[in-house]
Amino acid sequence: MPELRKDPITGRWVIIATDRPRRPGDFVREQVAPRGVRACPFCPDSEDKTPPEVLAYRDGGAANEPGWTLRVIPNKFPALRVEGTMERQGEGLYDKMTGIGAHEVIIETADHALTLADMPEKRVEDVFWAFRDRVLDLKKDRRLRYILLFKNHGEAAGASIEHTHSQLIALPVVPKRVQEEMTGARRYYEFKERCIYCDIIRQELDTGSRVVLETDHYLAISPYAPRFPFETWILPRIHRSHFEDFDAPALQNLAWVFRALLRKLDRVLERPPYNMVIHTSPIQEGPDPSYHWHIELIPKLTKVAGFEWGTGFYLNPTPPEEAAKFLRDTGLS
Amino acid sequence: MPELRKDPITGRWVIIATDRPRRPGDFVREQVAPRGVRACPFCPDSEDKTPPEVLAYRDGGAANEPGWTLRVIPNKFPALRVEGTMERQGEGLYDKMTGIGAHEVIIETADHALTLADMPEKRVEDVFWAFRDRVLDLKKDRRLRYILLFKNHGEAAGASIEHTHSQLIALPVVPKRVQEEMTGARRYYEFKERCIYCDIIRQELDTGSRVVLETDHYLAISPYAPRFPFETWILPRIHRSHFEDFDAPALQNLAWVFRALLRKLDRVLERPPYNMVIHTSPIQEGPDPSYHWHIELIPKLTKVAGFEWGTGFYLNPTPPEEAAKFLRDTGLS
Repeated sequence: MPELRKDPITGRWVIIATDRPRRPGDFVREQVAPRGVRACPFCPDSEDKTPPEVLAYRDGGAANEPGWTLRVIPNKFPALRVEGTMERQGEGLYDKMTGIGAHEVIIETADHALTLADMPEKRVEDVFWAFRDRVLDLKKDRRLRYILLFKNHGEAAGASIEHTHSQLIALPVVPKRVQEEMTGARRYYEFKERCIYCDIIRQELDTGSRVVLETDHYLAISPYAPRFPFETWILPRIHRSHFEDFDAPALQNLAWVFRALLRKLDRVLERPPYNMVIHTSPIQEGPDPSYHWHIELIPKLTKVAGFEWGTGFYLNPTPPEEAAKFLRDTGLS
Repeated sequence: MPELRKDPITGRWVIIATDRPRRPGDFVREQVAPRGVRACPFCPDSEDKTPPEVLAYRDGGAANEPGWTLRVIPNKFPALRVEGTMERQGEGLYDKMTGIGAHEVIIETADHALTLADMPEKRVEDVFWAFRDRVLDLKKDRRLRYILLFKNHGEAAGASIEHTHSQLIALPVVPKRVQEEMTGARRYYEFKERCIYCDIIRQELDTGSRVVLETDHYLAISPYAPRFPFETWILPRIHRSHFEDFDAPALQNLAWVFRALLRKLDRVLERPPYNMVIHTSPIQEGPDPSYHWHIELIPKLTKVAGFEWGTGFYLNPTPPEEAAKFLRDTGLS
């Protein structure tokens, strides 16, 4: 059974995911990732190689059979499990709880050869609809407090399977980075009675130098203090605390912006590996005037990694004003 | 001029290091790292390829000439610079300051073929003496508040030069991760009037299952909530807030423990890349009863990286009790 453990000093929760490969030999051996269509467990006709689907959008076909255009399945090596009872327990000065939660994979297209950037706009919209459908469903489980939606694209960014996919992890705790953002945003709100993200949007539109893309509904920027070169954020222009709280026009616009941004990154950085993560409010909480959901997109360009983990201190050679200019000046294909 | 910028939401400082390569092409092109002795800028007879040394331990020879056994030089592409005046400034709702600081490289041995794990014990001691010498010197600059001592070993861990070396970054701010630890430790101290690290040492010695190595002066453990497989901490058994505050026997013992641990990791994980970072108290502050300096050692085994950056949430497949057992049971060579 997976376990959540808390670092007693910083309060950070960590999943000890005992269902995944973990012995020394598992790390040392080069991971032989299945390459190409024939060996791919995410391609049509391989539905029996994955756990049964929890959601699918289909042009035809029965459940767990070909005909789908998007498919959501539980992760074969889940970090957390829905089964079991939620128990908190001390171990001397340490704290732990049972690893209740969910870990799902969103297979974004049936076509092994496509990336999100290459997919038709309509299919990218479907990905965001699927995110929302899963959030609305999992939200009903009151033990779950947070849902992380993220994507590792490319092996260097942590994707172990080539076929394009995103992931979802539902947690009984709020992750530390989001908690920190919520705390910081709340402190600002208490002092100013304004959302700090709304203020950032106003200032960025005013300054212009860090703006990458601007539409009726969204703003994409290189943030003022980016941790990584070409780190880019997408923010809804109208204040919203929860990602899942959108209507069809806002979603269509989001899919357009996201795809446009990926195409710009692909063009400027020659199809880089990247990580995407959605930061949103805890699922069981109501609308929050101080927190503003957003997407963080981080191309994986530098290898300097461990130092940053060890210190929380980031060294970024690329000023965001330069990154934004490169991305802005690149036409869309 | 490098710049320090503050994320307005979380308060995290980031160095925008404008003296380093930063345009898209710099990332895309495969870094052609110099391989082997002939091209290595850290080998003897290449002293003119680096900035002049700030410290060297020598068997003979003049400054910046062969004959050294350990050599400390400023980084050729420094993230921060000692020159300039310290200025803080606002930019609308954002904050920045000039990038005052130091960025140095500790070349740990003249021998290109050695790693820290293979070096004679005496030479590993020298590395820690050099760390201390540089800390005591830089501490005199009252603008500097924190000194990060760290090592990226192997390309996958971020080392761009093969010849074994560590790094030092002196900063006008305290890095976030250390700040978090200090805050957490202080909260515990206010409540219990005991150092949380001292309590952890007592509990770990009592439990035993996460102990890797134990000497008169130090304890090496797999921490209770490790972020990464085989993450290992070295803690001084007697409470000390500052790394540089040691005597010769404690240092000799530290070098022994550190080298023994590296040899164990090399044995169990087949010479893995790793990151090492020393967490210590801010240099201008006196002894702190609540904070306890320590070393964090993280083998770089998994590629799942960006997700963790984006969320501060860690997924670790290896229970620390198993990691500690593997390391404990491995004899030293």
